[in-house]
Amino acid sequence: MLTLLNFVLVKFAFSNYFFLFENFLFYMHAKLTSEILLYFLNTMSAKYTESTATQSTLNLLLPDFPPGPLDAYRRKASFNWKEFIVFFEGEDVLTFKKNVLSTLEKDPLFARVPGEDIPLEKQRELTFLRSKQLFRYNFLTNEEAMQNPFLTSALSDCLGMYDWSLSAKYFLNLQMFAGTVRRSGTKRHEQFADDIESMKTFGCFALTEISHGSNTRGMRTTAKYDPNTQEFIINSPDHEAAKIWIGNLGKTATHALVYAQLYTPDGVCHGLHPFIVQVRDPKTLLAMPGVMVGDIGKKLGQNGLDNGFVLFCDVRIPRENLLNSTGDITPEGLYVTPYKDPNKRFGASLGALSGGRVGITRMSVINLKLAISIAIRYSAARKQFGPSEEEEIPVLEYQLQQWRLIPYLAAIFALDYFSKSLFINFLEFQIGLMMKDNSDRQAEIGREIHALSCASKPLSSWTAQQAVQECREACGGHGYLTMNRIGDIRNDNDPNCTYEGDNNVILQQTSNYLLTWISLKYQGKSTNESPLGSLNFLGDFHTILSKVFEVTVEDECLDSSVPLLAYKWLVCYLLQESYLKIQQEKQMGKSDFEAKNNSQVYYCHTLAIAYIELTALQRFHDFTHDSSVPHGLQTVLKKLCALYGLWSLSKHIAVLYQGGYFCGKKCTELIQSSILTLCSQLKNDAVSLVDTIAPSDFILNSPIGKGDGEIYKNLWSAILQGKGALERPSWWMTFSSDKPLVGSLRGKL
Amino acid sequence: MLTLLNFVLVKFAFSNYFFLFENFLFYMHAKLTSEILLYFLNTMSAKYTESTATQSTLNLLLPDFPPGPLDAYRRKASFNWKEFIVFFEGEDVLTFKKNVLSTLEKDPLFARVPGEDIPLEKQRELTFLRSKQLFRYNFLTNEEAMQNPFLTSALSDCLGMYDWSLSAKYFLNLQMFAGTVRRSGTKRHEQFADDIESMKTFGCFALTEISHGSNTRGMRTTAKYDPNTQEFIINSPDHEAAKIWIGNLGKTATHALVYAQLYTPDGVCHGLHPFIVQVRDPKTLLAMPGVMVGDIGKKLGQNGLDNGFVLFCDVRIPRENLLNSTGDITPEGLYVTPYKDPNKRFGASLGALSGGRVGITRMSVINLKLAISIAIRYSAARKQFGPSEEEEIPVLEYQLQQWRLIPYLAAIFALDYFSKSLFINFLEFQIGLMMKDNSDRQAEIGREIHALSCASKPLSSWTAQQAVQECREACGGHGYLTMNRIGDIRNDNDPNCTYEGDNNVILQQTSNYLLTWISLKYQGKSTNESPLGSLNFLGDFHTILSKVFEVTVEDECLDSSVPLLAYKWLVCYLLQESYLKIQQEKQMGKSDFEAKNNSQVYYCHTLAIAYIELTALQRFHDFTHDSSVPHGLQTVLKKLCALYGLWSLSKHIAVLYQGGYFCGKKCTELIQSSILTLCSQLKNDAVSLVDTIAPSDFILNSPIGKGDGEIYKNLWSAILQGKGALERPSWWMTFSSDKPLVGSLRGKL
Repeated sequence: MLTLLNFVLVKFAFSNYFFLFENFLFYMHAKLTSEILLYFLNTMSAKYTESTATQSTLNLLLPDFPPGPLDAYRRKASFNWKEFIVFFEGEDVLTFKKNVLSTLEKDPLFARVPGEDIPLEKQRELTFLRSKQLFRYNFLTNEEAMQNPFLTSALSDCLGMYDWSLSAKYFLNLQMFAGTVRRSGTKRHEQFADDIESMKTFGCFALTEISHGSNTRGMRTTAKYDPNTQEFIINSPDHEAAKIWIGNLGKTATHALVYAQLYTPDGVCHGLHPFIVQVRDPKTLLAMPGVMVGDIGKKLGQNGLDNGFVLFCDVRIPRENLLNSTGDITPEGLYVTPYKDPNKRFGASLGALSGGRVGITRMSVINLKLAISIAIRYSAARKQFGPSEEEEIPVLEYQLQQWRLIPYLAAIFALDYFSKSLFINFLEFQIGLMMKDNSDRQAEIGREIHALSCASKPLSSWTAQQAVQECREACGGHGYLTMNRIGDIRNDNDPNCTYEGDNNVILQQTSNYLLTWISLKYQGKSTNESPLGSLNFLGDFHTILSKVFEVTVEDECLDSSVPLLAYKWLVCYLLQESYLKIQQEKQMGKSDFEAKNNSQVYYCHTLAIAYIELTALQRFHDFTHDSSVPHGLQTVLKKLCALYGLWSLSKHIAVLYQGGYFCGKKCTELIQSSILTLCSQLKNDAVSLVDTIAPSDFILNSPIGKGDGEIYKNLWSAILQGKGALERPSWWMTFSSDKPLVGSLRGKL
Repeated sequence: MLTLLNFVLVKFAFSNYFFLFENFLFYMHAKLTSEILLYFLNTMSAKYTESTATQSTLNLLLPDFPPGPLDAYRRKASFNWKEFIVFFEGEDVLTFKKNVLSTLEKDPLFARVPGEDIPLEKQRELTFLRSKQLFRYNFLTNEEAMQNPFLTSALSDCLGMYDWSLSAKYFLNLQMFAGTVRRSGTKRHEQFADDIESMKTFGCFALTEISHGSNTRGMRTTAKYDPNTQEFIINSPDHEAAKIWIGNLGKTATHALVYAQLYTPDGVCHGLHPFIVQVRDPKTLLAMPGVMVGDIGKKLGQNGLDNGFVLFCDVRIPRENLLNSTGDITPEGLYVTPYKDPNKRFGASLGALSGGRVGITRMSVINLKLAISIAIRYSAARKQFGPSEEEEIPVLEYQLQQWRLIPYLAAIFALDYFSKSLFINFLEFQIGLMMKDNSDRQAEIGREIHALSCASKPLSSWTAQQAVQECREACGGHGYLTMNRIGDIRNDNDPNCTYEGDNNVILQQTSNYLLTWISLKYQGKSTNESPLGSLNFLGDFHTILSKVFEVTVEDECLDSSVPLLAYKWLVCYLLQESYLKIQQEKQMGKSDFEAKNNSQVYYCHTLAIAYIELTALQRFHDFTHDSSVPHGLQTVLKKLCALYGLWSLSKHIAVLYQGGYFCGKKCTELIQSSILTLCSQLKNDAVSLVDTIAPSDFILNSPIGKGDGEIYKNLWSAILQGKGALERPSWWMTFSSDKPLVGSLRGKL
């Protein structure tokens, strides 16, 4: 599953790094503190402040909504949604997205009917044709991406909001194949990337095998070098070693980047390396000799993307098709590498993948936005029950419905901001890599971004998954109708929990990182800060652990500083307990492997989640409390931050009691009543907050989620236009004739 | 959504109640205590004890599994899986299920290809044809159902395990239409039911409207009586009043049971009544004049079932088409009813629906079984990582994987038993209804079964929903492949959370029931027991509230008596707190409506869930601790019970601390370490436990879930047999020709 991935974020960093270097030079000489992060994220809002004069441009970008059932809520909002969106997104990004999305809307190739039943093959064809059209639109040149790196992310957001299959198909080809070829290859491989970028060929990234996913070292495809012909011979030892789940490989890929164990003629295995293998003839799309390639069939979602499998039988490729930046073979068959440590080489070979998790963190936020937009608009327009039989009230007025949805609305803004900040962290890391920065700091950034992304992907993908399910249920039966899209969002988001590392498995990478810190601390060797700042609070480890919850009235509890303090205690406590638990296991004679495995549940696993929640909250807290936030937006942003923090924290209340941070009934009551108060306060802002995140009706493609809030009219109209909705079935005669004789087949039982 | 329901459980109670009366007479004169329940459930295991001689018959019913990767686990099991299944299911049920399932397996009409992409119309046709074939098989006659009521439930289990769409299509027609007609109609309606039962016509149950679901009183379809022609005129005032989500109505229903507001000629509305309305011509399947009927289109799941909509425009039906058991109209247009209180009439009219929730409780258990069977077998066969690079171990050996799956395995047995016991409760209630029992006890049973089913459906459907998602993720990428069926199980289970009352909404019915009890108690009026026993513990209300957690060592904690005690405290505490919270809201000037709404989150909502978890646990505890359980099974059953109890309880730890039942670190540690110990102990039994619940490979229809455990061979074989798996796409030329010119459409931006 590793390859079914939108690797958009790497694009800008690798395609053309000298442009980039110019723009980001200051990063190299300064620590990336939260101030710098904030500066970066606010450059766009600064531009907005300058550009408020052009109010008419803004109205063109953000037209008013038609009047309708949502008016009442829109009137109640405490802030101006247009000001919010320009501040939060930036005018550049906003304009870019508007262009992309309205281009898709105008092109009949991108037209859709909500809920239509498209056969699998047709879905794949459509996605291919749309992907081809994207080459023609070429929305973002390398130069434009350099000027504003957030545009690359914005393009992925746009394509994903429209359809994740399209986004995946486009970026897997251009980034996972061509990007990796440019990155891990040398000059001799440029033609492969050039061909992809002009769509002469189509590429895919082939790592995962049937019997190995998480354990990448266990891959069994072989590439044996034959010095006589100066070729590699690619083989799959058996069907368990078939490459599988490879996006684009099912139907369209002509070239695959195949990860295989490299063997020199002396029989020595040099580990996993990437090879370019042609799998189909670009003229006919027929398989090359020795290549058994095909489509793995229907998936739960993302069916526009053709995931495939491939089995190799003595497939010979030129020596030059090895991507040789981390290891090469001489014509005679000698293995040469700049790396002395094979572990480091393996890491460098696969290291490029770590950015995928940063991308998935963002993708999940987009899914969260889509689902919540539909559910909030529906809840504001749908009325059911009321104080009297005559008067029904919107279901959004019910405390329970608010509590089900509004915390996820808050999570959108917290995680959206966090995903952007993580993107910047990732940029810094990649720049260092490119500049061949060998400093300790660069190594530390690598470890920290790895720890952050290994937890941010689980946090974001699970939050989205849970939110989408809640939205499905919150929209009742209508949420179960395909045309309203919540099911597709759920199905398309689902693999975010799996590819680029199963969430449960990669969380262990994060806890390992934290455990290394505490282990060093107990040896007196730890530093009290980390380059990206996520560990800085640990400097006060013992002081924090001695603290208890001190808030006594709800008013004090309505700010994110309260959950922030609690989270710091929580992470310190879980870190200490996890460390002790592992020690205890070892003292009982368990191996390191067993000791770690037996300390995941309730310890390391929870620790990793708490750490990433704290980091996300800390960054959003700093952002919302910064003086640069426009006055008219600060109140609502602070409420969102406080709600996200308190609500996230509320899942850890048992631990807060267990470790003594909480004591007595009052603590929980304060947290809970504050959550409900904030939900109730944000209820009137909810529709306008959705207006800041929902794409156009065409892109959202959900009758009950439309901006006009006319849920029943839109639903009814879409139902009537369903294929054959009012026709009798083609098989009507099987009803009318050949009536069954009840029990006639009973004798056969 | 109310109508998309498997109403199997009512069948036996209503179709032919005199047979029934004979068999169940003893219920009418005795309280249905847990002893009687136990007696009933054990009659079948008693039969087993007698029939152990026929070991060869047993081996025919339960053949051994072929050797393979699961052997190691099967050898480690602490019990005999065949003994387990016969004890838990009973030989009668087992034989019956075997017959049904192997009949389906032999009939080519029921053949399937895993993961095939079937167009919507074809899915509906297939389901109809299979449903027609079920008439020919007529697996269960009324007489057979009378002799063993569990067979009705077993038939629903079988059809559901095969495909919930088929189960729904079959039972909606026979039970929700014909059953309700027989029940709520009189002699003049018999022909309608006879026609359905011979498939001359096809029926559906039309209650829900576009703008009203949960609030059934809000339905707006009208039936105005015209004394001149002695007809009712059925009208839908507008599209918001269109009946929608009606199962079978999309394609095949010829007759609908339409719930409409009855108006007499004097303009008085007498409330919602059921009318039989012909919607299509059975000869042509074309709509009747004035009837706009159609298909609502694709849903997230259950697409074999054709859910439809209907809009009426002056549709005239004979006066006799009113189902008149609760209210009738004279030829002149006078309304007559045996009920004086319109609220009671409304309740009686809709009362028949309450059993649906009992059925859904069971349906969700079946989904839980299917998903967990796949995930456990996969986890036992899938190896990944290990103590050394050479040796990989089954993922089921990892504590984290055990913790993710094994508690759900325990939940299966607890909820399976609970759903059966609830079925018996429901029988008692229905018998009373039929016998026109006007006693207080009968009324009390009605209230208690309502409270139980309004919480058992949420508990069971949510548990299944969460379990299926966990299973999807636990099977990694392969779990995301449609052919492995986890996605279909998730999609088919999803509506269980919604129809027959949205889970969140109906939980309020349960908490209201409990709040009434405490309110009476504070007035000194409450009794200390309830007819079905679920409130009996409340007699010790104050004593229980004064208790604290007293266990100090893990050994003591490994029995379900520990969580049982804690749950009793928890329910008493939440009941008291919920009551106080509502009082507090009222004292602040809130209306009853507001006070209740503002006391759901953290109070009434949690209370209802805790109450049903306690009830399920109590019943399973009594069952597993009974001396009648065969010696060889008691250990594993007790462990399952303890694990289910502790694991469920662990979600409430925050409240246990908050209310002072827990104090200090140790309590939580004991609960958690006990859960992990039990998971670890049950790990070796897991595969054999699955063998007791998994249907045959044909029915389970999941390559990675097959009984032989050959996950990769089965998966590979299924992939290769996928439609066009190895062919190039039909649209290959769009790849080879008309190559895009990069950026050629950029100018248009």
